Amino acid sequence: MKPDASDFDLQSALTDWRKLADQALSQALDAIAATPGCPAKLAEAMRYAVLGGGKRLRPALCLAACRACGGDASKALDGAVAVEFVHAYSLVHDDLPAMDDDDFRRGRPTCHKQFGEALAILAGDALLTHAFEFAARIPPAQAAVHLLAQAAGAAGMVGGQVNDVDGQALSLEAVESVHRRKTACMMEASVGLGALAANADEKQTEALTSYAAALGLAFQIADDLLAHEGDASELGRPTDSDQKQDRRTHPRLAGLDASRERVAEIIDEALESLRVLGPEALPLRALATFVARRAEGSIDD
Amino acid sequence: MKPDASDFDLQSALTDWRKLADQALSQALDAIAATPGCPAKLAEAMRYAVLGGGKRLRPALCLAACRACGGDASKALDGAVAVEFVHAYSLVHDDLPAMDDDDFRRGRPTCHKQFGEALAILAGDALLTHAFEFAARIPPAQAAVHLLAQAAGAAGMVGGQVNDVDGQALSLEAVESVHRRKTACMMEASVGLGALAANADEKQTEALTSYAAALGLAFQIADDLLAHEGDASELGRPTDSDQKQDRRTHPRLAGLDASRERVAEIIDEALESLRVLGPEALPLRALATFVARRAEGSIDD
Repeated sequence: MKPDASDFDLQSALTDWRKLADQALSQALDAIAATPGCPAKLAEAMRYAVLGGGKRLRPALCLAACRACGGDASKALDGAVAVEFVHAYSLVHDDLPAMDDDDFRRGRPTCHKQFGEALAILAGDALLTHAFEFAARIPPAQAAVHLLAQAAGAAGMVGGQVNDVDGQALSLEAVESVHRRKTACMMEASVGLGALAANADEKQTEALTSYAAALGLAFQIADDLLAHEGDASELGRPTDSDQKQDRRTHPRLAGLDASRERVAEIIDEALESLRVLGPEALPLRALATFVARRAEGSIDD
Repeated sequence: MKPDASDFDLQSALTDWRKLADQALSQALDAIAATPGCPAKLAEAMRYAVLGGGKRLRPALCLAACRACGGDASKALDGAVAVEFVHAYSLVHDDLPAMDDDDFRRGRPTCHKQFGEALAILAGDALLTHAFEFAARIPPAQAAVHLLAQAAGAAGMVGGQVNDVDGQALSLEAVESVHRRKTACMMEASVGLGALAANADEKQTEALTSYAAALGLAFQIADDLLAHEGDASELGRPTDSDQKQDRRTHPRLAGLDASRERVAEIIDEALESLRVLGPEALPLRALATFVARRAEGSIDD
């Protein structure tokens, strides 16, 4: 019998990946903190921003993508650090008073509430800077850095955030465009770095990239759905943040049922993309199924 | 007769380098702006931050270092773009209300006064991100990215800014430590990328790095001296910015004469470092002499 995603113990795999990623992240932060000239409180703010919980979804994608292409997950750890540093910096800057002005994240004060605005901006800057140092350890370095810069940059994550902050996303298409750039691009970079680390071929890389693009969009719509339904205590942050900004979300424009259907449709696309990969892609299939179930409202993580 | 720095037409060389750099910067910004998904106003804010004047000292160092090692300056243009993007991002973030809170720079409104704080933060983030894309085009990419990340990161420029903002630099040694990290590190990276682009040997690279470390420190003390003496109209920004922050500067701690002597001493070190390089290092010698004269108060650029 062919194993399918429902047989796979995703929670235990996610726990393993998170442990691997957390260890690599902690070592990376230690190395930065130990460099002569690094102010202690900057190192503290960076550590706070990176190690304060979180699902480590992007590192998991990076490690799982490397495995799916036959590589050893340990080869992709530099990539995992790079994408999580970028993710952590983006949360710190997005939470700033000039942007979303959020006081809490993951049940703790946001970085600028804890360390002040100047140090939060600078801790974010430092994380972004060092992310590239880790990405460049994956050969070929130029390709790895190009991939990360395009995903995180002006036409990727930062561009998506610009359009998100200005609230010009009035149509469903525009909301999906923000989600694609703000979330999906970095998920594509996560699997892309994993694929590079495994020295994957073009067919494998394309399959993983399509998968991650779909997963990222589905994940973000699922997030919109949860924010719409959930309560603050479960998510560890106020769910009225989007409402406060009068931000258009997928379910508000399309309705709950249509948004749920859209997630199911995109997840089917994600699973379809993985068909060219072998049984080693099972964890990625399970992850997609998990996002689909999350959107159905049965999981609140 | 051996040509010396005083025979060299530095202004005309600086103009040539600035033209080369401006052209490369403009092309780089065009390419970013033309990428599907890049919001027009983000591209506009990035262009405003980068192309609003400035001496292009870091690109000049990158191009001149490449020439000094026998390389063609055109090979170092990606490096020049990378270091100027990092410099421009650092000015945008340093000017923010949470940091220096400056309204004007180079005679124009600062980026956040012109585009709002959120877009200024994001334009800085995007510039930093894409800087690495350009640095990674210089082979070997891993070395180029490592060099830039160390110079710009937690133990370099960002670390220096953290200590500068917190105003803990109460001793001359601490002030010089801030200057070294905040200014000299990126000048070292500028010549370092130029040296890489020229495929320089270890001796050449070490000479250039020592030179740039000294030049950067001297340049920043000269800047302190000018801020102490100059008036706002000549520098295009309020000179009371440092005073406003009650920031300790070199001349305030050491006295004007001692600061001028310190610049002369460091510039001698810079010139000494260049001795192992041939006549192609003449522009770099001229640049050091220029900084020395600037500190003497005879030049206000």
